Amino acid sequence: MIRTAREIAEYAGAQLEGDAAAQISGVASPESAGPEDLIYVDTARHWERAAESRARCVLLPPGLELAGRTILRTVQPKLAFAKVAAWLLPPQAIAIGIHPSAIIASTARLGDGVAVGPYAVIEDEVEIGDGTQIGAQCFVGRGAHIGERCRLYPRVTLYAGARLGKNVMVHSGAVIGSDGFGYVFGEGKHWKFPQIGRVEIGDEVEIGSNATIDRGALDTTRIGAGTKIDNLVQIAHNVQVGEHSIIAAQTGISGSSRIGKQVVIGGQVGIADGCHIRDGAIVGAQAGIPTGKTIPAGETVWGTPARPLVKFKEQYAWFARLPELVDRLKKLEQQRG
Amino acid sequence: MIRTAREIAEYAGAQLEGDAAAQISGVASPESAGPEDLIYVDTARHWERAAESRARCVLLPPGLELAGRTILRTVQPKLAFAKVAAWLLPPQAIAIGIHPSAIIASTARLGDGVAVGPYAVIEDEVEIGDGTQIGAQCFVGRGAHIGERCRLYPRVTLYAGARLGKNVMVHSGAVIGSDGFGYVFGEGKHWKFPQIGRVEIGDEVEIGSNATIDRGALDTTRIGAGTKIDNLVQIAHNVQVGEHSIIAAQTGISGSSRIGKQVVIGGQVGIADGCHIRDGAIVGAQAGIPTGKTIPAGETVWGTPARPLVKFKEQYAWFARLPELVDRLKKLEQQRG
Amino acid sequence: MIRTAREIAEYAGAQLEGDAAAQISGVASPESAGPEDLIYVDTARHWERAAESRARCVLLPPGLELAGRTILRTVQPKLAFAKVAAWLLPPQAIAIGIHPSAIIASTARLGDGVAVGPYAVIEDEVEIGDGTQIGAQCFVGRGAHIGERCRLYPRVTLYAGARLGKNVMVHSGAVIGSDGFGYVFGEGKHWKFPQIGRVEIGDEVEIGSNATIDRGALDTTRIGAGTKIDNLVQIAHNVQVGEHSIIAAQTGISGSSRIGKQVVIGGQVGIADGCHIRDGAIVGAQAGIPTGKTIPAGETVWGTPARPLVKFKEQYAWFARLPELVDRLKKLEQQRG
Repeated sequence: MIRTAREIAEYAGAQLEGDAAAQISGVASPESAGPEDLIYVDTARHWERAAESRARCVLLPPGLELAGRTILRTVQPKLAFAKVAAWLLPPQAIAIGIHPSAIIASTARLGDGVAVGPYAVIEDEVEIGDGTQIGAQCFVGRGAHIGERCRLYPRVTLYAGARLGKNVMVHSGAVIGSDGFGYVFGEGKHWKFPQIGRVEIGDEVEIGSNATIDRGALDTTRIGAGTKIDNLVQIAHNVQVGEHSIIAAQTGISGSSRIGKQVVIGGQVGIADGCHIRDGAIVGAQAGIPTGKTIPAGETVWGTPARPLVKFKEQYAWFARLPELVDRLKKLEQQRG
Repeated sequence: MIRTAREIAEYAGAQLEGDAAAQISGVASPESAGPEDLIYVDTARHWERAAESRARCVLLPPGLELAGRTILRTVQPKLAFAKVAAWLLPPQAIAIGIHPSAIIASTARLGDGVAVGPYAVIEDEVEIGDGTQIGAQCFVGRGAHIGERCRLYPRVTLYAGARLGKNVMVHSGAVIGSDGFGYVFGEGKHWKFPQIGRVEIGDEVEIGSNATIDRGALDTTRIGAGTKIDNLVQIAHNVQVGEHSIIAAQTGISGSSRIGKQVVIGGQVGIADGCHIRDGAIVGAQAGIPTGKTIPAGETVWGTPARPLVKFKEQYAWFARLPELVDRLKKLEQQRG
Repeated sequence: MIRTAREIAEYAGAQLEGDAAAQISGVASPESAGPEDLIYVDTARHWERAAESRARCVLLPPGLELAGRTILRTVQPKLAFAKVAAWLLPPQAIAIGIHPSAIIASTARLGDGVAVGPYAVIEDEVEIGDGTQIGAQCFVGRGAHIGERCRLYPRVTLYAGARLGKNVMVHSGAVIGSDGFGYVFGEGKHWKFPQIGRVEIGDEVEIGSNATIDRGALDTTRIGAGTKIDNLVQIAHNVQVGEHSIIAAQTGISGSSRIGKQVVIGGQVGIADGCHIRDGAIVGAQAGIPTGKTIPAGETVWGTPARPLVKFKEQYAWFARLPELVDRLKKLEQQRG
């Protein structure tokens, strides 16, 4: 799709300065951009890269200039860039039509415009909303519900009964709704605790490749609308995640923990069972939250066991200076002796 | 299936107090239970939740009462609950019969009642025991052996020659028997060390979604009977895991390490190569066990590098108080100066 | 394949001492070897195991003897063993011919001798080099390029446009080219930053089971030739990994980080965004590298945040002795008071 700078500026709510008829056909980084690619600048370092770019049109924040370019002026250039990119470059279709090799149970109900790729399997009583695309080799278990305009990339598994809202995107290899990890030890062995609850994924959630989200044991695992989950994340039974949170790669959240809204969790974080990470908290990469712990709203924590970032940094700084402290201690001891 | 309280009590070995004819059709948490759901109580907090429940029948330990309910009295209510749940609610079939789209080599030998889902691929000389169910889109490589009554959920891979015992459950996306990670550096590159050993999974093992268990390099990787492995766990070549151990999500066990019986390993634990975690040891979440280290039987360890939990906690408490200790040190220095 | 000791010695560049006609049909560990299996010795402990072995032929370094065996003398026995193993035991075919159930777009171009397993899906404009084998149930997205003699085990996903060099091996469940994890927060929600870049995997790279490698956001994610990546590793958008590096299981590398040549990264390491790990550096297991940090060439680091190994060990030793240091501090305080 080709648009003019004027059309792009209007779509993005940006102020146009320069050639309103300049054509824009794509988006790019400053280095890889051709003349028709739109770029954006939001930092001084980014500005330097843009100054070298071949791009003719630039999303620029107030206070910065780039001579000889058509400027689309906006307070949040990166946000505008993301919006324009989604508009200019709609995602490639994951599937087109219903492939004849897809096995779809007669009791499954597919909405208008649903596409299903080759070798996908859709079991009985599944419901799929309008415009949803199911990739090749996906498995959608009995009774699962998938909302409108979802995108399941190839090789996704939804266990029986899993529920996805609208506009959910699930990447290849993700598994949603598998049994939680719960056992009762007795008579010399582990007995499986029932894992028969549900899993509900809210609207506009994105789930990364090979991530795993277990169904509830007796109740429901819930991921709130707008939350984004990276590759290889593990979410255990009964976990509740609020809306618009971010969970980076390889993080694990244990049973029954609650994560609030707009929480940001770094990569490889471990959250034990029964924790409560309140709204807006930030958990640094690799941090570990011990069983039952609450992190207050808006707090930033790091370390294992996690503590407020400022404290952790102070403690860690002294940890690094331990050899020096020991020297000072020895000196005092010698002076005494 | 509907049972009476009397039948349930008999099955669970519980003492019945109340309406022997009360009907039980399911199990639930106190909050979600309907009148015909069985619930259990094993802590005071659990008791409070049960007191609000609509459930008519409750598994209760000695010493607790719940007025107006039919009580199934037992010393281990949670254990009884797990057993009753498995009896009342047999797991849904993963596959029924041999789906015509399954590709099964003519030299594969399938036992009685084996079910294979759509688009599964079963290669030459595979043996599958009676009553085993192979989900849709599974791949079972040449010469693999699967015991009786196993359950492979959709999209599981068994590499050639992998061996599973009886009653093994494998969740979607798990990969069993892939090459271990071993190279020899020489002449400027990494040469692949042969990864041609075996992998043997004991009876009643459960393996989580997207977990990976490598074959041995020259010998055998072994998982003992009754051991439970959570999602996204990595088990490297030649690892030996004993019976009835628990390995929580995202833990990694490196080459040739040995894990004893009834060991409990928390989530995101890293165990380097050549370690020995003896029977009954407990390794706290995110702990790291350095190369070649032995953890004594029954010991609980935490931290990286891991140490006995009591020591770690004491050390960590002082770590947290380092700024205070430094103040005290400064004070002494000033008084001297 | 059966070879004589003379042939093996010639192939491996080893000096033969003993029965040149001894037959060798396989390789094994000392314990599992039969008479016709080749074994190797490279440490004193290994020598003890070899002395008990039934193997008739042994790769041995200068200075060691094993009575009654045919010796293949070489400076690097383990390296020679790896080379001989690859020669004697070529890997089993992943697929033979084009299975009739494979769905291959008419615009895909397959080289000579390409094999594609059952239920694999190969989309439009894919190019596959001579001799490459694509396992059952793999998905190769539109426009992907795969070089010569690659081996994709069953159930691998290549997203549209992914590029693999020659002799690349990808294990089951791996996902290459999925969207990176990038969003811009605005107007109360996370907007997806475009994830439309490329992913390029160099020659002779090996990628483990269920590993994930994201495409670039706007530019390219690159894995250098000869680099080996273990199971469940996560590599984010725009990461650049040099040649002949080693990345052990469950490690995560965040956006835009650069890893040099011949870097060794242990298991469960976390590397934040924008880091630079220079050539030949070694990062210990579970270490964490904070955002933007550079690790100098050849340096060995450990801990979170990572620091030089020697420093970390000294600091950690004092950490372990903190209770003792506190006692000494108290003593000084009491003597003063």
